[in-house]
Amino acid sequence: MPRLEVPERLLLGPGPSPVSERVRQAMAQPLLGHMDPAFLAIVDRVQEQLRLVFGTSNPLTFPVSGTGSAGMEMSLVTLIEPGDVVVVVQQGVFGQRLADAAARLGAEVVPIAIPFGGICSIKTLTETLDQHPQVRLVAVVKAETSTGVLQPLDGWAEVVHDRGALLLVDTVTALGGLPVHADAMGFDVSFSGTQKCLAAPPGLAPMTVGTRALERIQAREHQAPSWYFDLSAISQYLGKSRAYHHTAPISMIYALAEALNMILDEGLENVWTRHRQVAESLWAGLEAMGLEMMVPREHRLPTVATVRIPDGVDDKRVRQRLLDQYQIEIAGGLGPWAGKILRIGVMGQGAKISHMMTLLNALREVLHAEGFAVPSGLTALEETYQKAGQR
Amino acid sequence: MPRLEVPERLLLGPGPSPVSERVRQAMAQPLLGHMDPAFLAIVDRVQEQLRLVFGTSNPLTFPVSGTGSAGMEMSLVTLIEPGDVVVVVQQGVFGQRLADAAARLGAEVVPIAIPFGGICSIKTLTETLDQHPQVRLVAVVKAETSTGVLQPLDGWAEVVHDRGALLLVDTVTALGGLPVHADAMGFDVSFSGTQKCLAAPPGLAPMTVGTRALERIQAREHQAPSWYFDLSAISQYLGKSRAYHHTAPISMIYALAEALNMILDEGLENVWTRHRQVAESLWAGLEAMGLEMMVPREHRLPTVATVRIPDGVDDKRVRQRLLDQYQIEIAGGLGPWAGKILRIGVMGQGAKISHMMTLLNALREVLHAEGFAVPSGLTALEETYQKAGQR
Repeated sequence: MPRLEVPERLLLGPGPSPVSERVRQAMAQPLLGHMDPAFLAIVDRVQEQLRLVFGTSNPLTFPVSGTGSAGMEMSLVTLIEPGDVVVVVQQGVFGQRLADAAARLGAEVVPIAIPFGGICSIKTLTETLDQHPQVRLVAVVKAETSTGVLQPLDGWAEVVHDRGALLLVDTVTALGGLPVHADAMGFDVSFSGTQKCLAAPPGLAPMTVGTRALERIQAREHQAPSWYFDLSAISQYLGKSRAYHHTAPISMIYALAEALNMILDEGLENVWTRHRQVAESLWAGLEAMGLEMMVPREHRLPTVATVRIPDGVDDKRVRQRLLDQYQIEIAGGLGPWAGKILRIGVMGQGAKISHMMTLLNALREVLHAEGFAVPSGLTALEETYQKAGQR
Repeated sequence: MPRLEVPERLLLGPGPSPVSERVRQAMAQPLLGHMDPAFLAIVDRVQEQLRLVFGTSNPLTFPVSGTGSAGMEMSLVTLIEPGDVVVVVQQGVFGQRLADAAARLGAEVVPIAIPFGGICSIKTLTETLDQHPQVRLVAVVKAETSTGVLQPLDGWAEVVHDRGALLLVDTVTALGGLPVHADAMGFDVSFSGTQKCLAAPPGLAPMTVGTRALERIQAREHQAPSWYFDLSAISQYLGKSRAYHHTAPISMIYALAEALNMILDEGLENVWTRHRQVAESLWAGLEAMGLEMMVPREHRLPTVATVRIPDGVDDKRVRQRLLDQYQIEIAGGLGPWAGKILRIGVMGQGAKISHMMTLLNALREVLHAEGFAVPSGLTALEETYQKAGQR
C-alpha cells in the first residue's frame, strides 16, 4: 500500500483550523501508557493550562476523550436527570443541538427560539425563567458557529443562579480565541473543542466543572445513563487515586499540550488581540469587496465571519473553486442560511493577516468569474496589510 | 515553554501497544476538513480496510470517534431500550464493564458470572437463555484483557439468534491480532480499539453493525439517549448524503489508515501468525524462567499473557523497576487478580520476538533482584530466538 498522503489545504472554514508543524510533530512523539507517570505529568500540565484559557480555578478542568460534541454530551448526561426543566437558547444550529441532546436524556426542554443572526437578551432570558420557575439548567452557546454571533452573557449567571439553576456554556468556537473568563462570568460548566481557536486537531473536548455543578452531580437520584461519559470515574483518574477508567487518547493529548504551550508562549491576551485584529481586517476586506456581513458589528463573532452571497452567485460553486483552484477551504451556511452565506474562520493559526489576504484575493477572482462586479482598487484590508506588515 | 518531549518506552502492557514511526508520521500530516473530498476518500478506504480485518461485508463498518470504550457505549446505547433483558458474560473486568454500561441504560442485566481465568461454555449460555426467554441481547468479550482468556464463540450466534436475540462481541484485544470473522461467526455488532493489535494510537473504536442489528435499531420505540453516539446520524455522514454530524478526529483517522495499510501490506493471516508465534515463544520463555501461566493453553489469549507473580515478589516494585531501569511498560492484575499477576501484551508492533527477548531478560534481572530463584541456562525462548533469527 502506498503511504498516506494528503493535499495541503488552507483551512479557513469554521474548523478544523490549520495545525502548526510544531503541534503535528508533538503528536508524532512515541506513545506512552495512560498510567505512565510521564504521561500523567503531561495530563496534569494540560489541566493547569486549560484552567488558564478557561479563566477558572476549577480543579475539574480536563479534555474529554472525544470531539467537541462529546464535551456537550458529557455536560448534559452528567447534569440532566429525566424530567428536569432545561432552558436552551437556540440562536443557531449548535443551540438546536443542545436542545436535541437534552431532550434525548429525558429533559423537559424549554427553547428560547432566536432568529438566525440574533442574540438572546437578558430580558428574554429573565421572562422565560419567570415562566418556568422549576428550571434546573440554562444552556447557551457563547460563540454560535452557524451564525457568526457572539452571545453576550453579562449578568446571566446571577439571573440563573438566583433561581437555583445552573449555567452551561458552549465555548467551542470561543476558547483560546477570545476571553471566556469562566469563573468571573459564573459559568457552572463549559465545554469546548480543540480544532478551533486552540489550534490542535479535532479529537478532544476541553471541559471545566465548577463547585455548584459538582454538588448537583453528587445529589443525582439516578446514575447518568452513560459509562463512557461518567464524570465521577474520570475525575478519579485525574485525581490522586489515578484509577483507570478508559485509555486516554495519548497522541491527541500531546497535540493539545503543545498547542497550549504555543498559546501561552504568545500570551493569552496577545492571542485574543490577534484574533480580533485579523477579524476586523477580514471584515474590512469583505466590505471593501462589496460584500455584506450578516451580523451587526456589535454582536459579530471575531472567530467566524458570516457573509451574504451576492444574488446570482452559486454558493457551492464558489467553495468548490476555492478548494480546487486555490486549495482553500471555507464553508457554506447551515439551516435557514444554507446556500445564502459563506462562513470564514479566523481561528488559531488561521488567524493571520497573510491568510486573509490569500483568501480575499482568491475570493475576488472567484466572484469575478461568477459574474459578480467586484469593486476594483485598493481594499481596506490591503491598506491595513501594507500598514501592518505581515502579522 | 519548552517543546513537549516524552521518554521512549517499550510498551508491552495490555495497551496502548507501540506505534510505528510510519503511523506516527501519518498522524503528523497536515489537517484536512471533515467534509473535504480528499478526507472522505480516506474515510471510505478505512471503512473498506476495517471490513477486511473484521471479516465482514457490513456496509456500516467505521471508527467511532472515541477510545475503545466509546465503541462499547455506542453499541449498547444504540441497541438497548429500557427494560430490555440483556445477558452479559462476565469473565473479567471488561465483561463487568459491559454489564455496568448496560444497566445504566435501563437494561435488565442477566449476568453469567465466570470466575477470573475461566470461559463461558455454550451449555451455560444455552441454560441461561432458556431461563430468560425474553432475552434481547447477548454481550460477550472475545479476548478478555484482564484475564488473558480467549472466549470460544463457535455456535453462539445460532443459539442467540434462535431466541430472536442479538450477539454483541467486544473484540478490543482481538481485532488485527487474531481471526475475528464477524460474518462467519454471526456477530451482529462488534467493536474494538485502535491501540491494541491494530498498532495505532488510542482514540478510535472500530465498529461493525450487521443487518439484524440495523433492523432492531430502526424498530426502536424511543430515541437512543445520546446525541454523540447517534448511529443513524453518523451513518448519514458515512453514506451518500455526507450530512455533517460531528467533526471527525482527522489525525486519528490518518493514523488508523496507515496502520491498516501496514497490516494489509504484511498480510492479515501473516499478522495473525506472527502474534500467535511470538505469544508461544513468550509463554515458553516465561515457563522456562519458572513462572506459571494463569490460563490453560487451550483458552489462552495470544495477545495478552497473564502470569502469576511468585510468592514474596512485589508486583508494583517489579513493574516500577522495569519502567525506571529498562523503560519497559507491562501491567499488573485487575479486580481479584490485582497484585497477583503480571499482564504482558503481544500486540501489533509489540508482537516481535526481539521485544520479548528484551522483556524476558529485564524481567529475569528484576526477579533475581527481588530474590526469586530464576533457573539459569538457556531458556526455551532463547533457543527459539537463535533458531528463528529476529522476527
